[in-house]
Amino acid sequence: MNNSFTPYNRILMGPGPSNVHPRVLKALSKPALGHLDPQFIGLMDEIKELLKYTFKTENEATFVLSGPGSLGMEASLINLIQPGDKVVVCVGGYFANRMTQIVEKIGGKLVVVKEMWGRVIDPNKLEDALKQNPDTKVVAFVHAETSTGALSDIKTLSEIAHKYGAMVIADTVTSLGAVEVRIDEWEIDAAYSCSQKGLACVAGMSPITFSPRAVEHIKNRNIPVQSWFNDLNLILSYWNGPRKRAYHHTAPSNQFYGLHEALLLLKEEGIDNSWKRHKTNSDKLVARLKEIGLEPLVPESERIPNLLTIKIPDGVDELKVRTDLLNKHNLEIGAGLGELAGKVWRIGLMGYNSNEKMIDYCINSLKDVLK
Amino acid sequence: MNNSFTPYNRILMGPGPSNVHPRVLKALSKPALGHLDPQFIGLMDEIKELLKYTFKTENEATFVLSGPGSLGMEASLINLIQPGDKVVVCVGGYFANRMTQIVEKIGGKLVVVKEMWGRVIDPNKLEDALKQNPDTKVVAFVHAETSTGALSDIKTLSEIAHKYGAMVIADTVTSLGAVEVRIDEWEIDAAYSCSQKGLACVAGMSPITFSPRAVEHIKNRNIPVQSWFNDLNLILSYWNGPRKRAYHHTAPSNQFYGLHEALLLLKEEGIDNSWKRHKTNSDKLVARLKEIGLEPLVPESERIPNLLTIKIPDGVDELKVRTDLLNKHNLEIGAGLGELAGKVWRIGLMGYNSNEKMIDYCINSLKDVLK
Repeated sequence: MNNSFTPYNRILMGPGPSNVHPRVLKALSKPALGHLDPQFIGLMDEIKELLKYTFKTENEATFVLSGPGSLGMEASLINLIQPGDKVVVCVGGYFANRMTQIVEKIGGKLVVVKEMWGRVIDPNKLEDALKQNPDTKVVAFVHAETSTGALSDIKTLSEIAHKYGAMVIADTVTSLGAVEVRIDEWEIDAAYSCSQKGLACVAGMSPITFSPRAVEHIKNRNIPVQSWFNDLNLILSYWNGPRKRAYHHTAPSNQFYGLHEALLLLKEEGIDNSWKRHKTNSDKLVARLKEIGLEPLVPESERIPNLLTIKIPDGVDELKVRTDLLNKHNLEIGAGLGELAGKVWRIGLMGYNSNEKMIDYCINSLKDVLK
Repeated sequence: MNNSFTPYNRILMGPGPSNVHPRVLKALSKPALGHLDPQFIGLMDEIKELLKYTFKTENEATFVLSGPGSLGMEASLINLIQPGDKVVVCVGGYFANRMTQIVEKIGGKLVVVKEMWGRVIDPNKLEDALKQNPDTKVVAFVHAETSTGALSDIKTLSEIAHKYGAMVIADTVTSLGAVEVRIDEWEIDAAYSCSQKGLACVAGMSPITFSPRAVEHIKNRNIPVQSWFNDLNLILSYWNGPRKRAYHHTAPSNQFYGLHEALLLLKEEGIDNSWKRHKTNSDKLVARLKEIGLEPLVPESERIPNLLTIKIPDGVDELKVRTDLLNKHNLEIGAGLGELAGKVWRIGLMGYNSNEKMIDYCINSLKDVLK
């Protein structure tokens, strides 16, 4: 209570946060800057450009929210949806389910496309729902469902939504930086992510992007956005002010230093190379897990490479395994969430951690505690 | 764009952020921890206790929101107010005005008690408004109005509100840590602050506290809280879970390290000593400013010690002065905001910066650019 805090130097192989590059940690402790300092505005502009590179977009409304990924989820939904709007949410896991809760809080008319947890969203089910609900305004889904390990076909889902005239919101929390994401090519109207997974930064920020069509729609809403903090019209006057930036909130300067450095590392590697690295190392990890008798829940073609759900073998005390990993090996892996609680572990191999050394560490630790 | 970012080591004497203690900066770059790691839950418990000390409260619902002070403003209002509720907001500046915007977004019935910018809220005006609006559910006001430099009498305002059966929301963004704040003694139902002013931490977090009465009220709302991210019922299951903490969002571990260290520094000094230090140094700064012909806007008895609004002398180009201070002396002071834009500068002397050395630096720099 009266002492400075010294965290264990954990090996973080859960669903995120993952370990952070030393360059990013170092950036966090640089001197603070004012949120309207010309040098800081310059940093914001660089972050914007780096995020456009990362999201593969030319959207001018590309920036970072000063809060975690779940704030990004709320911001995307609350800006694009007006009370009474019909919204189709494709639900095959915990995070898509959270989307439905937010849609209900906003007062949207919710239509759920239900999928089995651990499988990708079936595009035919979305098409059926849209045929029955041609007045749908927005289709929302999770690209990489962190609770199940399933990677849905964002391109196809987006095509179907647009065919029926709906706008598309995609959760790219666990995919951005680690898995192919192409906002412009796939015509995503709003996408948000987090800082602590594929981007390999500390937690607490939410990169977000809106298409010009989405921005136009938000500007022309009949009912004002039901949040002040998340109102895109207000936020953009700070991030994209025409000449002078208008004060909106006090941006967390040191968090932004960290994000800038993490995005720079990603650009130095090349984002396509990062996608390849995550896939290659994931394949290696899966092969090694199989060798010790552990099987992924999700079929190979539907699997998020950087976040694996692993079936808990019969007779194994899953909590004891996680506790032993933490206490004996300083290794964090994730528990199952929602419907999959007690049924799977979640093993992340993301960002700075996606390398052979971490694979070895994970396998050797698991071998020890499972023996 | 392709280089690591190196911020100038600014002297931050605007309305916040202020400079950060080296111990806090160092804490930021410690290794990240998972948001459900037992060690991290322990850190959250310590932060809670330190915040109770800082707010002078025993409220169990005392914690930190993972976003800046303006998120805290929205969270306080959106949890306590239901659509249709009558809400009195006392407005004598920019930030109280922001409260009215949020109340309207929530669908509250807004009653404004208007005060002159630069003066404290007149308690009689509040009493008159409540006499005319006996069905008022919530009274909201700003303790230390950052846009004007006026420090309202939070104790008296709270007494009047309770006399008429209303709950009280107080903005303590610029007061907490630097000016006397006593949540329990003054019976404040909800108060929020920020991390980068009196607490001398980096920006991006919002300490917040709710009275047991407020928590009970929120639990029993007829209409669910119109935000998922800010829904106290959900957040408390993470911060105050009965046995096990439920996942809500991924907390920004490294930001929390910084806040913990900053709160520890405040406790080491003793909060009463911190209040005294801010007052003593403020008096010295005001005396020195007067020597060089600069006058505070706010009468002495109504003044926020740690944030002074200084009248811009006739014939002085205010923007040029601020630009020269920044470029020649690496010193940031604040511009006027809203009605006071172009009429005042805002000089902060807060947290780690509230000391004689900074007073000298500020006066000498001002002398140079004003000569």
